[in-house]
Amino acid sequence: MSPEPRRHVRFNAFDMNCVGHQSPGLWRHPQDRSTDYASLRYWTHLAQVLEKGLFDGLFIADVLGTYDVYGGSNEATLRAGTQVPVNDPFLLVSAMAAVTEHLGFGVTAGTAYEHPYPFSRRLATLDHLTEGRVGWNVVTGYLPSAARNMGQTDQREHDERYEHADEYLEVIYKLLEGSWEDDAVVRDTERGVFTDPAKVHEIGHEGRYFSVPGIALTEPSPQRTPVIFQAGASPRGTRFAAEHAEAVFVAAPTREQLTATIARIRDAVEAAGRDRSDVRIYAMLTVVTGPDDATARAKYAEYRSYTDVEGALALISGWMGVDLSAYDPDDVIGTDVQSNAIQSAVATFQQASGDTGAPWTVRQLAEWVGVGGFGPVVVGSGEDVAAELIDWVDETDVDGFNLAYAITPGTFEDVVEFVVPQLQALGAYPTEYEPGTLRHKLFGRGDRLPDAHRGSRYRVGAALGATR
Amino acid sequence: MSPEPRRHVRFNAFDMNCVGHQSPGLWRHPQDRSTDYASLRYWTHLAQVLEKGLFDGLFIADVLGTYDVYGGSNEATLRAGTQVPVNDPFLLVSAMAAVTEHLGFGVTAGTAYEHPYPFSRRLATLDHLTEGRVGWNVVTGYLPSAARNMGQTDQREHDERYEHADEYLEVIYKLLEGSWEDDAVVRDTERGVFTDPAKVHEIGHEGRYFSVPGIALTEPSPQRTPVIFQAGASPRGTRFAAEHAEAVFVAAPTREQLTATIARIRDAVEAAGRDRSDVRIYAMLTVVTGPDDATARAKYAEYRSYTDVEGALALISGWMGVDLSAYDPDDVIGTDVQSNAIQSAVATFQQASGDTGAPWTVRQLAEWVGVGGFGPVVVGSGEDVAAELIDWVDETDVDGFNLAYAITPGTFEDVVEFVVPQLQALGAYPTEYEPGTLRHKLFGRGDRLPDAHRGSRYRVGAALGATR
Repeated sequence: MSPEPRRHVRFNAFDMNCVGHQSPGLWRHPQDRSTDYASLRYWTHLAQVLEKGLFDGLFIADVLGTYDVYGGSNEATLRAGTQVPVNDPFLLVSAMAAVTEHLGFGVTAGTAYEHPYPFSRRLATLDHLTEGRVGWNVVTGYLPSAARNMGQTDQREHDERYEHADEYLEVIYKLLEGSWEDDAVVRDTERGVFTDPAKVHEIGHEGRYFSVPGIALTEPSPQRTPVIFQAGASPRGTRFAAEHAEAVFVAAPTREQLTATIARIRDAVEAAGRDRSDVRIYAMLTVVTGPDDATARAKYAEYRSYTDVEGALALISGWMGVDLSAYDPDDVIGTDVQSNAIQSAVATFQQASGDTGAPWTVRQLAEWVGVGGFGPVVVGSGEDVAAELIDWVDETDVDGFNLAYAITPGTFEDVVEFVVPQLQALGAYPTEYEPGTLRHKLFGRGDRLPDAHRGSRYRVGAALGATR
Repeated sequence: MSPEPRRHVRFNAFDMNCVGHQSPGLWRHPQDRSTDYASLRYWTHLAQVLEKGLFDGLFIADVLGTYDVYGGSNEATLRAGTQVPVNDPFLLVSAMAAVTEHLGFGVTAGTAYEHPYPFSRRLATLDHLTEGRVGWNVVTGYLPSAARNMGQTDQREHDERYEHADEYLEVIYKLLEGSWEDDAVVRDTERGVFTDPAKVHEIGHEGRYFSVPGIALTEPSPQRTPVIFQAGASPRGTRFAAEHAEAVFVAAPTREQLTATIARIRDAVEAAGRDRSDVRIYAMLTVVTGPDDATARAKYAEYRSYTDVEGALALISGWMGVDLSAYDPDDVIGTDVQSNAIQSAVATFQQASGDTGAPWTVRQLAEWVGVGGFGPVVVGSGEDVAAELIDWVDETDVDGFNLAYAITPGTFEDVVEFVVPQLQALGAYPTEYEPGTLRHKLFGRGDRLPDAHRGSRYRVGAALGATR
């Protein structure tokens, strides 16, 4: 009996080249291997686990700085090992690509980190080496500590960051889509012509932030522009995503919030002249599972016992811009802690956890966030988790999940062992990879940017500027 | 009978993430695989070949631009595929590191490409992932075409580039040597302390070019600062190398020139307060070998028949700043072509080739450079090549050779098959790798910068500035 075909649930793994990405303190768990983040074997093993589980990709987050709102310093984050030390994400990819065939890699880089000319070459190089399995997660700013270390007194004002990023993307598109024609590289050994110079074009970019007159240094890679990922949630961020993003990462603790967020993004994509389904949306979520419900629940309780309260508060302080070091862990939110942002977040977390009781303390907030960050945690047997994820997809219109880990690679191994087969049995998960590039795997319509995407306007022969 | 112990000949492989690095036109040779430069398998195979041959490392050159002196455009280089297209070198390393255990990786990056804060993180990340097998080849400028594409009308004036590079290195040292103490990362699961914040220091750098107040984002890697490579030959470049370099790459067509160059470098190193042997010097050289002398000579003749004259002239024009497109291939140098730089180079090439006959034509210049660039080519049986390389080392005080390829990986495979065993039989080549990091393999005295190296002044506890 073959399962009824239904909308597939998509999985990405959410990781970072550091210790304890979204689960502060869990590096102390005896089965956690996130402390091996600096070793190649950790990453090649993880990639193989994810490919076995037919994940779309591994999404590698990044920050180029430390969280220093809590107590006004980075002491708490250093002590807890929360997202510091942190290594470069790009350099992990080729080793993982060499041991896999299908897994995609979504790598984070900021438009403020590096000039687009050398950066476009990094993107093209990875797309070549992975044979078209690369995505770029576009970050428009960075932590204030990063801005200071890059020699700026502070980062650009929020909306101007997006103007800068927008021109940055334009330069990237011009270089990767518009400089070399598809048939520029002829490799004609008879005539001794490697590249036909007539088919390589200077981009002549002269903008507000960048001047890039010349040709791209790289020949066309399988996807040309890698799949564009984005995670901005502000109105300007959503507009940016609507124009550029092909995959969007969101974090919402409840189905209600997620439903609203997804509708807003798809509306914006439509308003930008694209189809509502032209972006794949992944919601951050953590799965704790095992052979049965009781085991899963026991695991979750055990994981939570490893939460580093101070480390969690340091992350929350950084994310929300509120210094929580001023409070005692037993202080009550809404009474002792007066912050609209914190109160509103906690109200949602309480709703997500089904807790209708007393107001939370600071410690309870830390413990909630301590496993899986701001995203929901789904706990149960593979069968229960599969059913719940299908419900989320049906109810919220999300395409899939950006799975954070409680422990790594254990959380991912558990998902592959217990949840994936259940989803497959329900017809809600692929049983093999589609061939082809990451973009083709995501949308099933070829390797290149679709015509409706803004980047395609910069192709050789496209009516440049006609729709601007 | 064990061979008499003698000074070892060291090998690096000289490659670039492009087609036909130093041998324009040879991509058309049926056995050349440089056109596979964009595939991971090409690089992982090459790394395994080199490790089998006990090479110190693979040195990956780079340019962030095109050669456009010839005819005032990049047409000739595009047509011939000479160093364009060119991909990023850093992204190759982790895949090669995953399939090797000892091979070092010398990767080129310019101090003008990227801010030192994120760049220091790339270096540390690679040093972690390779377990201490990374070197950084410091380039202080770039081609004018790169400068233009980075939004500058031209690159900095030559000597100022070195001032800028000097401060760049200072920032790198402060971040990699001086921010995290050796025992800062404690990983104490009992106390829940990953890093002891008291042992992580802000570097407080405030200079002419950079302001970097904060901490490094990375924990100490096996070598901390990767092995510093350099290739500058100007007086200011030599002074820079004398202060910073641990390995120096030189190119000299004759033993006389090489001897003088090496003496000048070692004098400068001594003048900078270091030992004459504190730098390993590798001379660029191409070996064409085979089972016997006749086969090797036939190979060389065949390789030369594939030279792309225009492609070679485009490279020479770029390297020497003289537009050779104005001349006919049959024009005679010194008569039709009046250029001191070209005449002087050709005189040395003639001497190197033992040619005391008529003045060369432009075509002869191109054909000489067409296999192995400006470096010498040693042709013969493994035994003959081994004897000649030992002679070079004895006579010039060079430590070893930066082996360019005629065809790749064929040239390297030939060296490993025919030359390495002959050198070993003569006691002039190791029979196994030393354990440890690249720095330890090169100098046999540990993983870290030696005390006499300028970078060590920035260590925590060092008397900062005392010797400046």
